[in-house]
Amino acid sequence: MKNFVLENPTKIIFGKGTIAEIGPEAKAIGSKALLVYGRGSIRANGVHDQVTASLRDAGCLWVEHGGVKSNPVLSHVRQGVALARSEQVDLVLAVGGGSVIDTAKAIAAGATVNHDVWKIFTAKKGVRSPLPVCCVLTLAASGSEMNGGMVITNDEKGLKLGAGHKDLKPRVSILDPEATFSVPPDYTAYGAVDAIAHILEFYFSCQGSFPVQERFMEGLVINIMESGAAAVRQPTDYTARANLMWCATLALNGWTAAGLGLVGFPMHMIEHAVSALYDVPHGAGLSCVIPAWMRWRSGRSPAKFAQLARRVFAVQATDDAEAAARGIDRLEAWFKTVRSPTRLSELGVDQPDIAALTAHALTQAKIWRLRGYNEDNIAAILAKAL
Amino acid sequence: MKNFVLENPTKIIFGKGTIAEIGPEAKAIGSKALLVYGRGSIRANGVHDQVTASLRDAGCLWVEHGGVKSNPVLSHVRQGVALARSEQVDLVLAVGGGSVIDTAKAIAAGATVNHDVWKIFTAKKGVRSPLPVCCVLTLAASGSEMNGGMVITNDEKGLKLGAGHKDLKPRVSILDPEATFSVPPDYTAYGAVDAIAHILEFYFSCQGSFPVQERFMEGLVINIMESGAAAVRQPTDYTARANLMWCATLALNGWTAAGLGLVGFPMHMIEHAVSALYDVPHGAGLSCVIPAWMRWRSGRSPAKFAQLARRVFAVQATDDAEAAARGIDRLEAWFKTVRSPTRLSELGVDQPDIAALTAHALTQAKIWRLRGYNEDNIAAILAKAL
Repeated sequence: MKNFVLENPTKIIFGKGTIAEIGPEAKAIGSKALLVYGRGSIRANGVHDQVTASLRDAGCLWVEHGGVKSNPVLSHVRQGVALARSEQVDLVLAVGGGSVIDTAKAIAAGATVNHDVWKIFTAKKGVRSPLPVCCVLTLAASGSEMNGGMVITNDEKGLKLGAGHKDLKPRVSILDPEATFSVPPDYTAYGAVDAIAHILEFYFSCQGSFPVQERFMEGLVINIMESGAAAVRQPTDYTARANLMWCATLALNGWTAAGLGLVGFPMHMIEHAVSALYDVPHGAGLSCVIPAWMRWRSGRSPAKFAQLARRVFAVQATDDAEAAARGIDRLEAWFKTVRSPTRLSELGVDQPDIAALTAHALTQAKIWRLRGYNEDNIAAILAKAL
Repeated sequence: MKNFVLENPTKIIFGKGTIAEIGPEAKAIGSKALLVYGRGSIRANGVHDQVTASLRDAGCLWVEHGGVKSNPVLSHVRQGVALARSEQVDLVLAVGGGSVIDTAKAIAAGATVNHDVWKIFTAKKGVRSPLPVCCVLTLAASGSEMNGGMVITNDEKGLKLGAGHKDLKPRVSILDPEATFSVPPDYTAYGAVDAIAHILEFYFSCQGSFPVQERFMEGLVINIMESGAAAVRQPTDYTARANLMWCATLALNGWTAAGLGLVGFPMHMIEHAVSALYDVPHGAGLSCVIPAWMRWRSGRSPAKFAQLARRVFAVQATDDAEAAARGIDRLEAWFKTVRSPTRLSELGVDQPDIAALTAHALTQAKIWRLRGYNEDNIAAILAKAL
């Protein structure tokens, strides 16, 4: 176990009927919120009404900043920063999934500094006393509701970058599984894939043996597969939605990662390039990149991949390479079960610009200080994903 | 999954060499600490020197209140409350294991109220704005370093009761596995037993199916058994000490319990009676009570016990009752492996006063609102533990 500091003060309010608590929670932080949301789903499913009714009852004012798209863009963040400043809001309230929460965090970080917010993503500037962020979650996927990370695409430069800061952890996140009942099967699956990807990044990138964290992660992968498949089959299965939602939060809230030391996010590094250049859903891109990366990586050291295969997929093979290969096949088969693509060509990316994708991935690798990747191996991984 | 609120802001600083950070952390909270510790082990192993050097360097004053015994007593808590008040300390710094931390919490709670601190344990009064608690942990066992619970024995009345409050969660807890190198094999084993007991209380007392939490708990039990046995064999095995320490914290910091709803602590209820009346080490009492309680309880509904047997002990039996019985045998065998007693008679409790033990347990049951226990079944469980 490596030395670590763990401090995650996010207050999680989880369960049926909890959205009504957002008003008092927000009002305890400030008098005026910037309400950030997406492109209409929260109006269609009633969550917008629930949130605004609670804010009104609690006497918390709000200004709306809707229109966040998946793969959220810098231009929209900048508009939000301007609005947060001109309206002098006290907090940023995200109502949505990872794209909305990440946009809210970027606005919260940008509103309190004099420089352009993009400098935070290129690591030229840091985060300083950001506005408090609160969250009402409507999609089980990114884990952004309980961590300090955010990913934004610079739509001028076609560059998708991630950044983070401990002070960007939401103060309060409300997780009502019923708010995800209206998520369609494809996005439910992409969310489950994203959560699995977060776990596998830690699982395979840590250097050494971490039996406590590994068992925790293996249990989460099993549960995401079970609950994710059930939620795809029956979108109003409360238990499935609840388990999936909580697992997705746990996948990236720092609990599994504590003690692992520095870990890379190579699958995300490659997928961010794909979704930045081809605007495919992040989870859909991941289910193509994950098996490709795992096949490439396990060829070099199969032991950890064999452990996952044996513990999560009950693979019996005694040979590590054999077990690893079967485990990856089983994971890929699960992606197919929930109808998440496993080849980029299924997403319409038939002849990707490998040079551009590689250059994009290497930009992120440089910022994240992720070693061991170059044009050749990234191209080789992408070739497997086609 | 049941609705829940989870908020655990304790800052964990984990790893080798981290005790030196206590001074700056304490000083950030206040200028004068009440330093609570036990009966000499931290002087012998150098931890007292490390802590006071760090406090001195950071300019944080302290007043000492040593002498906490295992099964910590109310009279010593009351002395601490008086000292905290007369010295006007800003925080209470526990340096030790669960007994020391629980004493520190009780002092922190007692110092800010006008009534006697025992009223908090009898649920006649609540906790109000307690002093901040910080912690340097020297024993992997109770989990008190990351929760708001505390257990104190009223040495006038011979009554051991637990209480808790969210504001008693330590602000900062430093977990340096090397500080546990000097814990002897018996107390290392008792600590591991205590951590396993915390997990099993949740695992068996929750009502319903909680696949996410159950997998997490099963992984922890496996890891506590592996790391606990290794630490008993080789007290300076850093990896074993680190894994055991972190597992013991996770066993009772609210992470596994989130979503389970209200759960009882029946094995603790019975063991507290034993250690209150016979002053045996808590973990040693537990390793006698646990198999007895499990055999009694699994007779009524073996399914969950069979699940534990299959997943943790790889028991193959298809019949639930058979699997449950074998699993309990395996757990009891592990207690023997680490030389923790499995019969109260091994602790010198040959002919316990069953009536007195039962009355004590029922007092706790009433305060905890734990249903389903009476003189008959408590006596039956104790009979199995003899």
